[in-house]
Amino acid sequence: MTGPAILLDHGSGGEKSDTLIEESILPHIINPHLAVLNDGASVSIGGHRLAISTDSYVVDPIFFPGGSIGHLAVHGTVNDVSMCGARPLYLSCALIMEEGFPVQDLERIMADMGAAAKKAGVAIITGDTKVVPRGACDKIFINTTGIGITPEGTAPSADKAKPGDAIILSGTIGDHGLAILSSREGLTFQSEIKSDTAPLNQMVSDIIAICPEIHVLRDPTRGGVATVLNEVASASGVHITLHEDNLPIRPDVAALGELLGLDPLYTANEGKLLAWAPREKAEAVLTAIQNSPYGKEAAIIGEVTSTTDHPHVTLTTLTGGKRRVPRLTGDQLPRIC
Amino acid sequence: MTGPAILLDHGSGGEKSDTLIEESILPHIINPHLAVLNDGASVSIGGHRLAISTDSYVVDPIFFPGGSIGHLAVHGTVNDVSMCGARPLYLSCALIMEEGFPVQDLERIMADMGAAAKKAGVAIITGDTKVVPRGACDKIFINTTGIGITPEGTAPSADKAKPGDAIILSGTIGDHGLAILSSREGLTFQSEIKSDTAPLNQMVSDIIAICPEIHVLRDPTRGGVATVLNEVASASGVHITLHEDNLPIRPDVAALGELLGLDPLYTANEGKLLAWAPREKAEAVLTAIQNSPYGKEAAIIGEVTSTTDHPHVTLTTLTGGKRRVPRLTGDQLPRIC
Repeated sequence: MTGPAILLDHGSGGEKSDTLIEESILPHIINPHLAVLNDGASVSIGGHRLAISTDSYVVDPIFFPGGSIGHLAVHGTVNDVSMCGARPLYLSCALIMEEGFPVQDLERIMADMGAAAKKAGVAIITGDTKVVPRGACDKIFINTTGIGITPEGTAPSADKAKPGDAIILSGTIGDHGLAILSSREGLTFQSEIKSDTAPLNQMVSDIIAICPEIHVLRDPTRGGVATVLNEVASASGVHITLHEDNLPIRPDVAALGELLGLDPLYTANEGKLLAWAPREKAEAVLTAIQNSPYGKEAAIIGEVTSTTDHPHVTLTTLTGGKRRVPRLTGDQLPRIC
Repeated sequence: MTGPAILLDHGSGGEKSDTLIEESILPHIINPHLAVLNDGASVSIGGHRLAISTDSYVVDPIFFPGGSIGHLAVHGTVNDVSMCGARPLYLSCALIMEEGFPVQDLERIMADMGAAAKKAGVAIITGDTKVVPRGACDKIFINTTGIGITPEGTAPSADKAKPGDAIILSGTIGDHGLAILSSREGLTFQSEIKSDTAPLNQMVSDIIAICPEIHVLRDPTRGGVATVLNEVASASGVHITLHEDNLPIRPDVAALGELLGLDPLYTANEGKLLAWAPREKAEAVLTAIQNSPYGKEAAIIGEVTSTTDHPHVTLTTLTGGKRRVPRLTGDQLPRIC
């Protein structure tokens, strides 16, 4: 007797991922501290609120325009800890390598991790190295787990979006996903598109300095902006309206996305965040993001319009029409991060 | 031009592992907090000393006599945090699965993780799920990262072994490695050998309660007891003497080890620890271990005889002879944990 099997969709960050996690994973490990809604968990230790987040990186190819699996492994976890409103301090680093993997590639990746950690101001403090026989994994997978401290009075969470909130996106979307795909398709010489992989901890500090009560912070990685918007709409029970003409997208990303059938709204980013700011602070938060590293092209892309029993996301198109932005079904791009 | 490649030996926990880590990994990420000698790192946050440890589990087969990859993923990291002298509190859990992996196997593994976490008194608080295409990984790999609090006055470390220290082993050796190997070789029906996978946090609490100044705590996983003894000898600059007649080994493990060419001294354990206790507390520590869960067969297996510029480990054999116990060279058994 054979039951259901894991599908690529189960790792997409979309609907199938959620179903698998809700039905096959969470029921077995449920406890009061478990982070269900957010990019990381918050726990208290001796009066300090710590944020903890983990991610495994399986990106293919491991070197791509704009970065490597080493940059992703640092930035991705630094960003997830930051999205909890926390200041990331420490990372662990666990490597799984395939027998035969070139040592010089390992060294290049470790140099990228070291440089990325230094730039983000975090320390890699402990690690693990496993080697599996040829064919038991593809080249190298990296897990990093990050720990940070959350300041008093700050507790952004996906269920805190409120009517009137402005939704701010910190820059152009789709760059990472399209850089990876063009790299896979051998299109890199015809394209200038680079991954946006970057650490967002400084940007989050700058946001919190002027808006400690920031409602929601999320980085739109797997599944892209559309997936995060839908998750937050569901968790908060709200309707979100998006304005297509405010969405920052590079023309070459839009063009290549069209060519390859990839919608930038659903495509992974590795150096962008979405912030839900109370209306009266929206302009100040936008300015803080624009003045911070990696936020120059930030824009207010939409707002929370109302509470609702049927949470959803609507896009006002360039031509003035309206269309629903559904959740991702099916895996757009495996091994994107 | 092709340079050197990663070998299975690089993941053995033996000499090759150390060389790779020292030459190709550490130089790129070095910082004052980095744990080099021990199973985890210690950092201070707001006056509290936290211990943090990470491990990826790639064991094959994923289900074996006495446990599963799910048990290992909880016990292994709980134990590594405990070996820092800390009380483990929280775990993260990151899954990498191969497309086509049976959902019922995932659910069985998650149930094992949930049960193991409950038994150890730790909470799994955050996670990540990645799916890679068929052939890009073998079934499932799990990373867990653990966080614990270290009590004041306790700071065991591999470089603290001192002449006169008694070396206590908490039970029989080789069980896990031989359970895995007999499972791979299809010998499970002829053998009663089970993995010893177990959480050691209660045992460590019991040790610390009567000997907070315990010098060294280590769990002899990959590379076995011989590897840990050599690591501690090197880190502390001491000579260690081991007494073969005191080594607890199950007769069937010894027999099967002989048959399969596997020395239990070098074989992985997943529910044992080695403690270096000051001479005057040796008997009290031994009794505490024997009275704690999973420690009934504990024994004093040797002692630190002297400081030396040429750290090494000597075994006094059953027949009264002496032989050197060298470091592991070559990988005895890939994917053992």
